[in-house]
Amino acid sequence: MKTRILVTIGDINGIGPEIVLKTLARPGFSDKYDLTVITPVSVLEYYYRLYRLKPAESNFKIFSVCEGKAIIKPGQITKEAGYIAGFAIKTAVELCLRDEYDVIVTSPISKKALNLGGFKYEGHTEMLTALHKLKTSVMVMVSRKINIAFATTHPPVKNLAKLLTKQLLIDKLKVTYESLKKDLGVAKPRIGVLSLNPHAGEGGQIGNEEIKIILPAMQAFMNKHDDVVLEGPFPSDSYFGEKKYEKYNMTFAMYHDQGFIPFKMLAGKLGTNFTAGLSFVRTSPDHGTAFDIAGKNLATEESLVEAIKTADKIFKTRRKSKTK
Amino acid sequence: MKTRILVTIGDINGIGPEIVLKTLARPGFSDKYDLTVITPVSVLEYYYRLYRLKPAESNFKIFSVCEGKAIIKPGQITKEAGYIAGFAIKTAVELCLRDEYDVIVTSPISKKALNLGGFKYEGHTEMLTALHKLKTSVMVMVSRKINIAFATTHPPVKNLAKLLTKQLLIDKLKVTYESLKKDLGVAKPRIGVLSLNPHAGEGGQIGNEEIKIILPAMQAFMNKHDDVVLEGPFPSDSYFGEKKYEKYNMTFAMYHDQGFIPFKMLAGKLGTNFTAGLSFVRTSPDHGTAFDIAGKNLATEESLVEAIKTADKIFKTRRKSKTK
Repeated sequence: MKTRILVTIGDINGIGPEIVLKTLARPGFSDKYDLTVITPVSVLEYYYRLYRLKPAESNFKIFSVCEGKAIIKPGQITKEAGYIAGFAIKTAVELCLRDEYDVIVTSPISKKALNLGGFKYEGHTEMLTALHKLKTSVMVMVSRKINIAFATTHPPVKNLAKLLTKQLLIDKLKVTYESLKKDLGVAKPRIGVLSLNPHAGEGGQIGNEEIKIILPAMQAFMNKHDDVVLEGPFPSDSYFGEKKYEKYNMTFAMYHDQGFIPFKMLAGKLGTNFTAGLSFVRTSPDHGTAFDIAGKNLATEESLVEAIKTADKIFKTRRKSKTK
Repeated sequence: MKTRILVTIGDINGIGPEIVLKTLARPGFSDKYDLTVITPVSVLEYYYRLYRLKPAESNFKIFSVCEGKAIIKPGQITKEAGYIAGFAIKTAVELCLRDEYDVIVTSPISKKALNLGGFKYEGHTEMLTALHKLKTSVMVMVSRKINIAFATTHPPVKNLAKLLTKQLLIDKLKVTYESLKKDLGVAKPRIGVLSLNPHAGEGGQIGNEEIKIILPAMQAFMNKHDDVVLEGPFPSDSYFGEKKYEKYNMTFAMYHDQGFIPFKMLAGKLGTNFTAGLSFVRTSPDHGTAFDIAGKNLATEESLVEAIKTADKIFKTRRKSKTK
């Protein structure tokens, strides 16, 4: 049985439609999946004409939404585009929760447009978690070289330290651990935890979050789980400089740039954003709307292709662990 | 004329003495410089015996300090070791300010030991700046692949956002720019500036420091200097992922791990910490005291060797720009 994959169109003024079309144009690709794009048809038509691109085969479906509302202005942040992006995600979640699809692969959105469009969320991860009525989920970056889970998604740096609580870390570690077993098929997960502060706080000399929050959370988590190796908190510079991540199935980062800098250096364009902890599988490419190159036929589809492949693989692993 | 280089012994319970001895034992190395180690003689003797290491040649000097106070406990944080480390630095600065030496190369210290020993500083950079009676200086990491200057040194993450002011950035950019010209011999400096927040703040959606502080500081600086290219603030993950740093002579990072993660990934052990803005040249190896391997003969001297070579090169460039 082919995996039933829903691809959301993302911000119609960004590179989302372009990379979706380029993915569909790959000979033989869409054939491997039961692929549906959730989008106003007029958006695909617009970019078809603009790029003279035609899908290689007709083996994909369109789930049509928001027809008549799609005014396309490549590179611009508009309320309309934000509304369409948000509506497509909302619809996709409903379809998955009704088990009509197995997987959502989301094209990039603009947070600003999303909010203008009436969807008041920080980003995909938060929106999916809220629509799911879940307490938490975990943003995970997956690649062939390294996997990184995040304690926080995209907060401003000034709010970071106060967001990190012992309970938050325990909750996020639990989702990460369960996902490693269920979604990535790792029987005994090994997780390397990063510190928040430079030099891992140098024994409390540079901030005390390592001593007061991170270590106690790790300890509390390990007390409840025998089949996990949890090490750290490591100073993040030497952790990556000395390739310590190679010893673990997952690196657990405290904040966005701490994980994304090394991830993008190691994984290049072949990185996938995966939301762990949802009932369905959700992935997305490892880049944003790229408004600066939207409508210019300069975007490449590698990362979306990788996101679809990864989602399919995770879904199959998850199905296998369920039947065990 | 050989460059007159002072090497401070660092924390005597860390790997400092070991890497100093291993550097001196390199055939032909110390010959190239006018090299003086500032240390209690008994510390060198202790590690001589422990490792059966002997300097290859006798062409280096010892500037003896704190004799009789050196109780060596490899791997331990002690008040005595902190006092010796601090006293050696203080003496080295005095000698340089009296122009008896051109360069200080510092071996690693423990901030905790330093403070226990009565020297209440955040680290080398802050101590040297204070002893110099300077308003500011800039921590710069130098290597063959990338150079990174830092707006801040090692603050806890929770204090970071409030430390970043427009004036601080202007001051740090000025020192960075002058050092590029004077110390690194770059006629028209090109500096790539990183943002503080994820996605460069996404137009104010994720923190406003980019809009309120970083951009205005860059603008103010550029208004006063015609011969500089200053670009950014860039999202730090794609800046490193897409190798944008290759376009600049210097990357200007907002905080420690933002710069040190990619630096250690790119430069490996061949990175040098350089303090820009002092009257003399100061460098240090790109690692800490490594208490976990102290006294075990496991440390390697590459980074100290690189720090000495880099300091010599910077001093010679500086002398040349002075005589222009």
